[in-house]
Amino acid sequence: MVTQPQLDASSTLPIYKQLYAHFSGLIQSGQLAKGERLPATRELAGSLGLNRTTVAAAYELLESEGFISGQVGRGSFVMQRSVTPNGPFDWPRLLERSTPGLQPPAPSPLSRQGVSFATSRPSEQLFPLDALRASCEEVMAGPDFAHILQLGSPSGYEPLRRYLLDAARAENLAAPDDDLIVTNGCQQSLDLLGRVLLRPGDKVIVEDPVYPGLKSLFLEAGAQLIGVPVGPDGMEIEQLQVALDRERPRLVVVTSNFQNPTGATLPIAARAALLRAAQAAGVPLVENDAYGDLRYSGDDLPPIKQSADAGHVILLRSFSKITFPGLRVGWVLGPRALIARLAQSKQLADLHTDQLSQAVLLRFAESGRMADHRTHMLRAGAERLAAVLAACDRYLPAGSRFTRPRGGMNLWVRLPEPLDAGELLARAHRENVSYLPGKYFAVSRFDPGSLRLSFAGLAPDEIRKGLAVLGAIFSNELERTRSHTALEPAPAMV
Amino acid sequence: MVTQPQLDASSTLPIYKQLYAHFSGLIQSGQLAKGERLPATRELAGSLGLNRTTVAAAYELLESEGFISGQVGRGSFVMQRSVTPNGPFDWPRLLERSTPGLQPPAPSPLSRQGVSFATSRPSEQLFPLDALRASCEEVMAGPDFAHILQLGSPSGYEPLRRYLLDAARAENLAAPDDDLIVTNGCQQSLDLLGRVLLRPGDKVIVEDPVYPGLKSLFLEAGAQLIGVPVGPDGMEIEQLQVALDRERPRLVVVTSNFQNPTGATLPIAARAALLRAAQAAGVPLVENDAYGDLRYSGDDLPPIKQSADAGHVILLRSFSKITFPGLRVGWVLGPRALIARLAQSKQLADLHTDQLSQAVLLRFAESGRMADHRTHMLRAGAERLAAVLAACDRYLPAGSRFTRPRGGMNLWVRLPEPLDAGELLARAHRENVSYLPGKYFAVSRFDPGSLRLSFAGLAPDEIRKGLAVLGAIFSNELERTRSHTALEPAPAMV
Repeated sequence: MVTQPQLDASSTLPIYKQLYAHFSGLIQSGQLAKGERLPATRELAGSLGLNRTTVAAAYELLESEGFISGQVGRGSFVMQRSVTPNGPFDWPRLLERSTPGLQPPAPSPLSRQGVSFATSRPSEQLFPLDALRASCEEVMAGPDFAHILQLGSPSGYEPLRRYLLDAARAENLAAPDDDLIVTNGCQQSLDLLGRVLLRPGDKVIVEDPVYPGLKSLFLEAGAQLIGVPVGPDGMEIEQLQVALDRERPRLVVVTSNFQNPTGATLPIAARAALLRAAQAAGVPLVENDAYGDLRYSGDDLPPIKQSADAGHVILLRSFSKITFPGLRVGWVLGPRALIARLAQSKQLADLHTDQLSQAVLLRFAESGRMADHRTHMLRAGAERLAAVLAACDRYLPAGSRFTRPRGGMNLWVRLPEPLDAGELLARAHRENVSYLPGKYFAVSRFDPGSLRLSFAGLAPDEIRKGLAVLGAIFSNELERTRSHTALEPAPAMV
Repeated sequence: MVTQPQLDASSTLPIYKQLYAHFSGLIQSGQLAKGERLPATRELAGSLGLNRTTVAAAYELLESEGFISGQVGRGSFVMQRSVTPNGPFDWPRLLERSTPGLQPPAPSPLSRQGVSFATSRPSEQLFPLDALRASCEEVMAGPDFAHILQLGSPSGYEPLRRYLLDAARAENLAAPDDDLIVTNGCQQSLDLLGRVLLRPGDKVIVEDPVYPGLKSLFLEAGAQLIGVPVGPDGMEIEQLQVALDRERPRLVVVTSNFQNPTGATLPIAARAALLRAAQAAGVPLVENDAYGDLRYSGDDLPPIKQSADAGHVILLRSFSKITFPGLRVGWVLGPRALIARLAQSKQLADLHTDQLSQAVLLRFAESGRMADHRTHMLRAGAERLAAVLAACDRYLPAGSRFTRPRGGMNLWVRLPEPLDAGELLARAHRENVSYLPGKYFAVSRFDPGSLRLSFAGLAPDEIRKGLAVLGAIFSNELERTRSHTALEPAPAMV
């Protein structure tokens, strides 16, 4: 029998969190034993005079923390009865409630001649080291150097912030009431958005497959991910519409250009439809545009944020893909009220972004060196993209499908059945080649034959060499399974 | 006339936020016009049957959002009349669930001749710019430069991580099973610890008063803070013992040296007692040691983490106070299982810490330049500390008490009753002097006469000038209130 919780309406702790604390305390102390059934949400809400959604939010949090498990039609049951302490500092026990999502392992160390398609990053060989040195020298010689080394603002190094905001205005991206905050790259931009906008149990519409750093981050925040399939033209708008109607999400996150992992780009009409759909549903739209600067052929498409009625769209951009990922600088452009709240959260997260890199990247951009470097990157990227597409055509086994992006760093391969890209990775590693299997990107649809090839960090020769190895592994395995199937005795008809 | 708010005790939104939403709504819709006076907190609390602190929290939030402005002795007045709602994207509504704690406002801009005691940071005048330039040149000329600019590891730039771990081993700080992760400074170290170890409703024992960045961060995470008073010798151990027994917290966070805001340092015996108490209770102990390198007199005390049985202690350190706060680099030393989980969380938070600053600070340390700079900082710090103590003796009104730290950047003043340091701040700003009133540091004990003086960023002359101004303001007010009290008719005896 469960004691009635003591709820304090004047506490700064919301009621659902008080309920959560009550039940998790009972479970941890053993007063609620494993297997016991919690009161139904409707029943408990009634007896406490609460809204049923309040109780449901508490139960969702308990479930996300592993304290209970909900079984459809039967109720919620205690999972975990904590646990006699085995010594006071049993770290595995102390850490058992933390909930990292499924993250890719650190890239396997390959030997010197190895070819890794596993990381979506530019090539070190293309880094314009002299141009960066010159930018750094200018910053160090400048009158602002001491100030740059001093404690800064959560909103960013003011000259960089202003530069980026002016550039956004010149591109017609900034609505009149928009503002901008500098972050440590798009990953932190997503983290700050999650901290400010999401609470456990909230639903977020994302692409499926999606960048694993986004998936794990929002799962860690306790959000529920609703995956909308990504086709050759990006997120499928009709499915998005269905999800918006049915799920009532709190946020939609979409990649307009060269999506990671598929490389897909949203056509203009889809951008407009997506904007209309999110707007009609009253759901804020996050436009993640980490790769937009890297188009190797065709014309740039206008960002969603450029639409006249996109004042509520939240645009994420970054220097990491076009310049140096080791310098962590990105930014968020969006409604002023949101940006102010992000700045508060940024201050709690890490006070502010490193100012030396902010100042050096500002100088790199202002001086025109970034534009020169981009020209160089686009030429190299076009060669690499052509190389990977040609090598896929040549080496992947018949029946393989792959996307044909026109920019960015990634393409998406679906091997013919019954190949399993996750199982075959160990074999690839033995031959010094790496990639990321589709399981790390899947939200709710998982094709075991899928994998991501990140090509931008590799020279055309490496790309051909690596794909020759992968093609041989995949083709051999396909042959093996097919001959195996042929030898299997036919089952009796029953 | 203000309509009575409709409060819903069963809402997931705390009452103070419902009050906030009520008044911000009235202001935005124009029902409360600019210049109108809000009911006094006492009056409103009485009429609604609420605790006065609940109403005060709502008013503080309204003030921090710019909706109202409090005027000492007169009340709170409407500042802003917004702004038609922007359709379905009413951002104040979308943001209403996010819960920033009470954070100090951005430091008031003072004029050039102003004196700000408000920020705990080193002086720009002391920055060794040439030594930093030389370190940066060496990094840019080194063989690892391109690698530094490439995507790095969540655990930190490996040469820096190894250097710090070796240094910790040489100092006998690292237990055999310890590991180390580089972060963007102590603020992020605390954030990552919160992400991994804390869930809503968890209790954390902290110092009272405590650094506001820690308070707001853990409140944002939904934790409940248990404040243990800080005396002249740091956290009071007997009170800690009581709190450990009664509250069953998940974490204890303590500052061993020159605590922010009080400047207090734990004596050796208290360090040992604290370690034993936390260990007996099975509660991990976070030793925040951002200021330990800045002792101006007396002998360094061994960190808690140096004890033979401190394998479960989590030590936080940083370059920010001893070198350049604009370069965001700190670290966490602790049990391997915990550090591994922090690295997962770090990857979700922002992938990794900026590598240019990591490499430059490593060079700055390895080259011996950091040790030279520290000698310089300690000499300057000793002068500044002597100046602030002498100026407090000379200028603060009789009955004032203040701590006498032997290092760090801050001291803590308690003005005689009935002075209110929060109310008097506006007067100080008018005379171009700033400090932080005690309210931003209070956990559960709040002395309105308390304030923090951050002296390390100011030259001795500025310190004297600023304290002369503050002393005059405080003394005048004290005189005024006393003469006022003297004039009041004595109440009848009943």
